[in-house]
Amino acid sequence: MNFVQIIDKKSKGLELNKEEINFFVSNYTEGNIPDYQASALLMAIKLKGITDHELVLYTRALIESGEIFPLNNELVDKHSTGGIGDKTSITLLPILAAMGLKIFKMSGRGLGFTGGTIDKLESVKGFNVNLTIDEVNDMVNDIGLSITGQTPKLVPADGKIYALRDITATVDSPALIAASIISKKIASGAKNILIDLKVGTGAFVNNVEDAKELARLMKLIAADWDRNLFVLISSMSQPLGNNVGNKNEVHEAIEALKGTWPEDFYALIKKISVELYSKSKNVSIEEAEKVFKDAVESGDALNKQKEWFAKHGVKNFDEDTQFTPAHKELFKSEKSGYVSFKDVKSFGNYLIELKAGRKVKGDKLDFDAGIRFFAKTGDKIEVGETLFEVTSSKPISENLVHNISKEITINDTKQEFNIIVDEVTW
Amino acid sequence: MNFVQIIDKKSKGLELNKEEINFFVSNYTEGNIPDYQASALLMAIKLKGITDHELVLYTRALIESGEIFPLNNELVDKHSTGGIGDKTSITLLPILAAMGLKIFKMSGRGLGFTGGTIDKLESVKGFNVNLTIDEVNDMVNDIGLSITGQTPKLVPADGKIYALRDITATVDSPALIAASIISKKIASGAKNILIDLKVGTGAFVNNVEDAKELARLMKLIAADWDRNLFVLISSMSQPLGNNVGNKNEVHEAIEALKGTWPEDFYALIKKISVELYSKSKNVSIEEAEKVFKDAVESGDALNKQKEWFAKHGVKNFDEDTQFTPAHKELFKSEKSGYVSFKDVKSFGNYLIELKAGRKVKGDKLDFDAGIRFFAKTGDKIEVGETLFEVTSSKPISENLVHNISKEITINDTKQEFNIIVDEVTW
Repeated sequence: MNFVQIIDKKSKGLELNKEEINFFVSNYTEGNIPDYQASALLMAIKLKGITDHELVLYTRALIESGEIFPLNNELVDKHSTGGIGDKTSITLLPILAAMGLKIFKMSGRGLGFTGGTIDKLESVKGFNVNLTIDEVNDMVNDIGLSITGQTPKLVPADGKIYALRDITATVDSPALIAASIISKKIASGAKNILIDLKVGTGAFVNNVEDAKELARLMKLIAADWDRNLFVLISSMSQPLGNNVGNKNEVHEAIEALKGTWPEDFYALIKKISVELYSKSKNVSIEEAEKVFKDAVESGDALNKQKEWFAKHGVKNFDEDTQFTPAHKELFKSEKSGYVSFKDVKSFGNYLIELKAGRKVKGDKLDFDAGIRFFAKTGDKIEVGETLFEVTSSKPISENLVHNISKEITINDTKQEFNIIVDEVTW
Repeated sequence: MNFVQIIDKKSKGLELNKEEINFFVSNYTEGNIPDYQASALLMAIKLKGITDHELVLYTRALIESGEIFPLNNELVDKHSTGGIGDKTSITLLPILAAMGLKIFKMSGRGLGFTGGTIDKLESVKGFNVNLTIDEVNDMVNDIGLSITGQTPKLVPADGKIYALRDITATVDSPALIAASIISKKIASGAKNILIDLKVGTGAFVNNVEDAKELARLMKLIAADWDRNLFVLISSMSQPLGNNVGNKNEVHEAIEALKGTWPEDFYALIKKISVELYSKSKNVSIEEAEKVFKDAVESGDALNKQKEWFAKHGVKNFDEDTQFTPAHKELFKSEKSGYVSFKDVKSFGNYLIELKAGRKVKGDKLDFDAGIRFFAKTGDKIEVGETLFEVTSSKPISENLVHNISKEITINDTKQEFNIIVDEVTW
């Protein structure tokens, strides 16, 4: 098969067949197709699109490039498409386990404006994120949940193709995004999968229409593998919760289970938990809500979280999860009015400046660095009240605090905010 | 400057500015931009196009990547976009020199279905195609014409970009094609340039509309450098002349100057010569035609050709340009009717099979290999008359001869053929 002809065919907008798609995925993964040919094909795919049929074939090829865990009806999975302040997994996983579901997550590190759960957990002294797949499986069987940063055997083709897309401006393709996300969920073996698809200025998807098309593509792939998929479309037009950073987010995620919830965070966690439980146990939403409330209010979820952290190597849960940054700078509002957020992505970039996020792979993080918001969208604030604070292990520049303040608007009109924007149901 | 952002910008169909275009061309040429990023940008350019302004800037960047010969009002240049049986330069150059014009050509080798003038000339014993630029210049000053296969210093950026386009299915972009062709003509210093743009099944451009758009782009670039450009649109819906191959084409090109012209070949050579002369000497077409006829019929052009071959190292012109292949297979027509050609490109592929053309760079050629047509489009042929013959230094398979015959149609209706299809004048 001549790969130049395959690139040419796609660049003309023609549909590739199974042999051509498999040829690309397997030969690129094995190193037989050079990067410069793969990137030309990926750009042609980004600009000419692929059909639903091609997408299904392409995702099959991705999945079959590595190990595939057998379908497990007991397992659930949840994936967020990323954003600012997304500490969902740290609170959600113990809740789901306390509700009687089983979940393990393979998570990534942060890069660019999005943070990564693995980085956040690593800010806790002793937390070992490098479990083998066997250790993860054992832990799931034992306590119902586990997490690891190691995903070497699943969907290696996606890892290689994603790395190339990242440096060739070919990330931005709905089909390639859907294939990349769902291929890994399917290879992980979960029957019921919930995708938390973020929309807004802090997400890579900016509007609901694009989110719905992405959801449609994801469900197409899930159906091909006999998985149930729920796509929750949630808002990233403000940071999630009150804290963004690493250790401060873990702290917030734990405080939630102790009863102190940011409003948006609670609504999101509840929605995800209830949907996954209702589908997995085949019970009504009302029944699932009862189980959720009980798991949270009884303290079961908090105990599960402590058990989980202990299993991962954390010795003193209460002490090791405290957030006590060396430096703190408050910003007091210079206006009275209602709060809203401009470009939420910008906070991700300020986090990079604070070393709470990475510019390039391998950057060392400052776990004390972060921002805490004292008011969120729709809240009223008066002159002189604290709007946010910046924390760090090092002295904080006044200029940075000033720049951050410019991304928050104080206005006369109240802007409404709903974390749940829309959904594409099971 | 972030190159991923430049790729992304172009993939969105936005116009790149001068700094971004220069950044790409200079950094890719110097090896600072990896192939996989360059190929992604080239695919985005192929699919999203570039504006006229971008094209002018891009071509400037190409030209400025290397040495630029000063503008020389005395020099003319001619370039053919390639096809089957194109031995034009071998006959044209001595005619132009005999008419009193000056021309030197930097020519390439054949690859894929198109042949290369350098290969054809090399089939003549002793013909040295590897002259330095200084040797070429001296020869032009001395006898009015010269040719070389060496182009190391002119437009190095195009050489590198073209090599990448060739293996990433990004050749097929009118703007990139125009830039690639015209950049080299401009760097060569000629004031008056004629492009012989082939259309038809044996060319990469299939219709006159596409040819005219390509011509428009070429003229845009030429105007930016104060050059006069004539784009002749000529037909490649049959092979040019009666012989296709290498040494048989040289032989045909010489026989023409001795008075034996294939009809299409004569019309093409005359048109190119007259246009270039009329423009360069600022005389009427009628006056130019007189000078052309005189140069050819007086034997001056043939003498010029002998002088030229001698200067390049050929010792015995008459003997060394004879075509005496070891093997010859005739195909006799099985039908009566009018001749026409199906997919002219296919002959290029049969030439590759015969080793008269190259599949990949570096393939050794059999100079005796070729095809001679005894009838062309519109000619009448009777059952049993020779339609074509295949020649080679090795025995020729019957199967190959049979396959070649299938590319020639014998029909009841006469198909008209005109070598000159259209023109975009000075």
